[in-house]
Amino acid sequence: MAGRRICIVGGVAGGASCAARARRMDEQAEIIIFEKGPFVSFANCGLPYYVGDVIRREEHLLVATPEMFQQRFRIEVRLHSEVVRIDRNRRRLLVRDHQAGRDYEEAYDALVLSPGAAAVKPPISGLDSEGVFFVRTIPDSREIRRMIEERHAQSAVVIGGGYIGLEMTENLVRRGLQVTLVEMQDQVMPMCDPEMVWPLQETLRDKGTTLRLKTQVKAVERNADEALTVRLHSGESLTANLVIVAVGVRPEVQLARDAGLALGPLGGIRVNERMQTSDPFIWAVGDAVEVSHVITGLETLLPLAGPANRQGRLAADAICGRDVRFRGVQGTAVVGLFDQVLAMTGPSERVLKSLGLWNGPLDCEKIYLHPGHHASYYPGAETLAMKLIFSKRDGKILGLQVVGKKGAVRRTDVIAMAMQKGGTVFDLEEAELCYAPQFGSAKDPVNLAGMIAANVVRGDVEVVHAESMDRPPEDVLILDVREPFEYRRGHIAGAVHIPLGALRQRMAELPKDREIWVYCYVGQRSYLAARALRQYGYRAKNLSGGYRTYTMWRQAAQGADNAL
Amino acid sequence: MAGRRICIVGGVAGGASCAARARRMDEQAEIIIFEKGPFVSFANCGLPYYVGDVIRREEHLLVATPEMFQQRFRIEVRLHSEVVRIDRNRRRLLVRDHQAGRDYEEAYDALVLSPGAAAVKPPISGLDSEGVFFVRTIPDSREIRRMIEERHAQSAVVIGGGYIGLEMTENLVRRGLQVTLVEMQDQVMPMCDPEMVWPLQETLRDKGTTLRLKTQVKAVERNADEALTVRLHSGESLTANLVIVAVGVRPEVQLARDAGLALGPLGGIRVNERMQTSDPFIWAVGDAVEVSHVITGLETLLPLAGPANRQGRLAADAICGRDVRFRGVQGTAVVGLFDQVLAMTGPSERVLKSLGLWNGPLDCEKIYLHPGHHASYYPGAETLAMKLIFSKRDGKILGLQVVGKKGAVRRTDVIAMAMQKGGTVFDLEEAELCYAPQFGSAKDPVNLAGMIAANVVRGDVEVVHAESMDRPPEDVLILDVREPFEYRRGHIAGAVHIPLGALRQRMAELPKDREIWVYCYVGQRSYLAARALRQYGYRAKNLSGGYRTYTMWRQAAQGADNAL
Repeated sequence: MAGRRICIVGGVAGGASCAARARRMDEQAEIIIFEKGPFVSFANCGLPYYVGDVIRREEHLLVATPEMFQQRFRIEVRLHSEVVRIDRNRRRLLVRDHQAGRDYEEAYDALVLSPGAAAVKPPISGLDSEGVFFVRTIPDSREIRRMIEERHAQSAVVIGGGYIGLEMTENLVRRGLQVTLVEMQDQVMPMCDPEMVWPLQETLRDKGTTLRLKTQVKAVERNADEALTVRLHSGESLTANLVIVAVGVRPEVQLARDAGLALGPLGGIRVNERMQTSDPFIWAVGDAVEVSHVITGLETLLPLAGPANRQGRLAADAICGRDVRFRGVQGTAVVGLFDQVLAMTGPSERVLKSLGLWNGPLDCEKIYLHPGHHASYYPGAETLAMKLIFSKRDGKILGLQVVGKKGAVRRTDVIAMAMQKGGTVFDLEEAELCYAPQFGSAKDPVNLAGMIAANVVRGDVEVVHAESMDRPPEDVLILDVREPFEYRRGHIAGAVHIPLGALRQRMAELPKDREIWVYCYVGQRSYLAARALRQYGYRAKNLSGGYRTYTMWRQAAQGADNAL
Repeated sequence: MAGRRICIVGGVAGGASCAARARRMDEQAEIIIFEKGPFVSFANCGLPYYVGDVIRREEHLLVATPEMFQQRFRIEVRLHSEVVRIDRNRRRLLVRDHQAGRDYEEAYDALVLSPGAAAVKPPISGLDSEGVFFVRTIPDSREIRRMIEERHAQSAVVIGGGYIGLEMTENLVRRGLQVTLVEMQDQVMPMCDPEMVWPLQETLRDKGTTLRLKTQVKAVERNADEALTVRLHSGESLTANLVIVAVGVRPEVQLARDAGLALGPLGGIRVNERMQTSDPFIWAVGDAVEVSHVITGLETLLPLAGPANRQGRLAADAICGRDVRFRGVQGTAVVGLFDQVLAMTGPSERVLKSLGLWNGPLDCEKIYLHPGHHASYYPGAETLAMKLIFSKRDGKILGLQVVGKKGAVRRTDVIAMAMQKGGTVFDLEEAELCYAPQFGSAKDPVNLAGMIAANVVRGDVEVVHAESMDRPPEDVLILDVREPFEYRRGHIAGAVHIPLGALRQRMAELPKDREIWVYCYVGQRSYLAARALRQYGYRAKNLSGGYRTYTMWRQAAQGADNAL
């Protein structure tokens, strides 16, 4: 009883998920995975940690083997097998068997493309030199390990400050290398906002790495002594034993393009909600496809494992006749860097502004807060920095970034779920979350974020932001309501100082005809002050996130300037 | 400019939140907190950890002081001030000043009752003996510390296996005491299901404590040598230096009842959605009130700090004329016990069954899973045990229990948020959560729970449960699809053994006219087997959670029996 033949190009994440799901849905189907590499379904997110010897054995990265696919799922995996052409009319693939050194044809009833993404090769000469690596495969990582263990590499230049660049930096430092991280933009993690990544940049410096922002590499040259010289556009040069290139990935669309499948505006494979390409017999999933962003409504590329797995599973359902729709992506992600964790969901302020959406229909506002990750009275509470972006109109949650040593992922996941369900800041205010003193607070950071944002949406308080504090309009009075010892340690230029405890007595000192921008350390006391002032007829606004956010913003701005 | 006078009875959690919010809403109001104890707003959830010397200094428990309330909020706190009567007609309170030893009257425009809950005093004689403690106040905890530090208490009997009982057990063990935990019911944490608390019971035994389930205490007697004899109903007796009584709390309603305010069916103060009592000038919040449970739709008592804080804040808004509604509670909670964490949201199976809701309109089903708390290929993954309860009809999420060393709180909080938004198991399937190998999995435990449950709701697989496996109907065949080494280590009585890898070849050995209950270790391979079998015309069902859940269930059942 022969069933349909489902061919899948690419065996990692989306492809593997699709194959396994297809078998569960259709016991009769013939399912073949073509994987051009030597492994199927390996844990590519683990590669930096394998370099860092956190993951000690290469086998641990092999999530599944061809034997396992055969045994459990009756799925045939063909390794070293590159699909080089799709004949859509005849529904046939031309497959190149790199081991046997021959090409052959294979027919399909349904075809799933899961080719993934390729490392972007930046316009830098000498990237094919020995000692230069793109960390995309197990052999890449194996070779870097060998450079460290056998050839005693002492230093590295990492080009690119995104996920992989940061993770590689951490793991090379863990291996004792002196690392210079070079990033073209004015911040690491450019999908996030600069003030929110500043703690990561600070951590890089604390760990002894050199961070070079706004820096472009021109060339890599291998010297006679086997060291590499990294030449910068500025004319300077850096020397290292290893160079890691991690400037992002681009969808692998050659096969799809050659087959005449429609591509999207960002160069990924275009698919509908069923992950179907412009050819009804061909589906595509994973890093190679463009998907819809649930917040911006725009097409986006989001090369992450979670969505790839979901898409693979969904494509299998679609092929097997189920009425399924991919709900789109929201960009939930996390990166760990030494003891810091930066987690996010939804677009950043920077992205929303660059898309023209900040002041547009979304009517964005933001608030900052700095809560402890659990009750302050229980030892070991770490401070989180949170930035919540929401619609001022209806309170709809649009984005979140959280950075800190503990608890960032949990709050991001909760708010990601709220966003998935179309939640508002009022929902966060009302959330009923786990509390015991070692695990959280009676008012969890999620609740606090909701309360602070809800106060803004309801009009109970108006907020101003750090970036306005150094150049306020002339008639604005800046008011610091912290304690004297805090004020003495540092304050915003020109601020009048009245501690909160004395504010009600000394209110008459303040002008009613000027706007008053109040701040404290994190924005809580100044919120109390602003509420009181407003009720007495003062035009008070609150600096969201207080002096602490101001410091983050300022350091980020200065750090970027210094990098020039 | 005198405003209304808002009087608040009780300064902890709900009362303190209410007072602070009232000030922010109304600068003119006169706000007075009457607190019969010596402290305002202390961290009562921290008391066990203060006993355990995790929290080292008593001051750390004092979240706020009367001075702080005065300075920041212009709120007057009157300590040692017990409100002993409410004259609702004249809107006046009779206040007893325990320090000055006098009674006086105070008028109110709005009154908020936040009296909290009192420890239940079980019918045990001798509970007023020296050395017997109810852990409700700072002085209680201080005295227990003194017993340990100065009088070198060596042993304790803890009566009651709920939150406080478990936390006290952990902290007394931490202090080097030999602890016997006595629980009347057949499990600790009776708000959870027995199989889900079994890991906690196992941990108690591992840590050298003695757990006595189904055991009732009759009397506590203090002997000449200052030791306490705890006499059990069984006739046995235990000896200890300390006895902790933690058999739960009951709403403190004396004042409300005396004032003729309506009480609810469970004996708490009845309030409407605005936290207003039957008297329109009196509101009530916190542990003393009955609130609506969002899942069961029934009135419930939920003496937890998070809801109390939300209610206090909301009552202040209501008093200040805002149109607000309390959305009810869902029972999100967590308890830590040594390295184990048990978190939950929504009612348990036991509660749903006892309320007659399991097979009723909610049409409940449950699934179990045992995912790693992060990617298995990254070192240090800890296994979680999860139980998700949902409606078979529409997939609505009804409840969750998670137990494990790491990651339980995060998944509970995410699912709590999904439930708050009326989410379904399909939403969990599609959730986009943080993933990097040290923080999660590409298919997070939340996704997996959603996928497994969605398979059931969609009818792709039927599940059977551990409690049916020991007494299956006669015509059922039990099929173990694990590897031979797993089967040899232990299996369900009478199971036929065909490893998954051989199943397709050996399928003919199986009968088509009998129901086949398939199991593996955690339920994943058996799900694959069940899917294949069904497609070949077999009547296969999957044991949810596999042999691992079966073991938990069986141990829990045996543990309870042995305790007889």
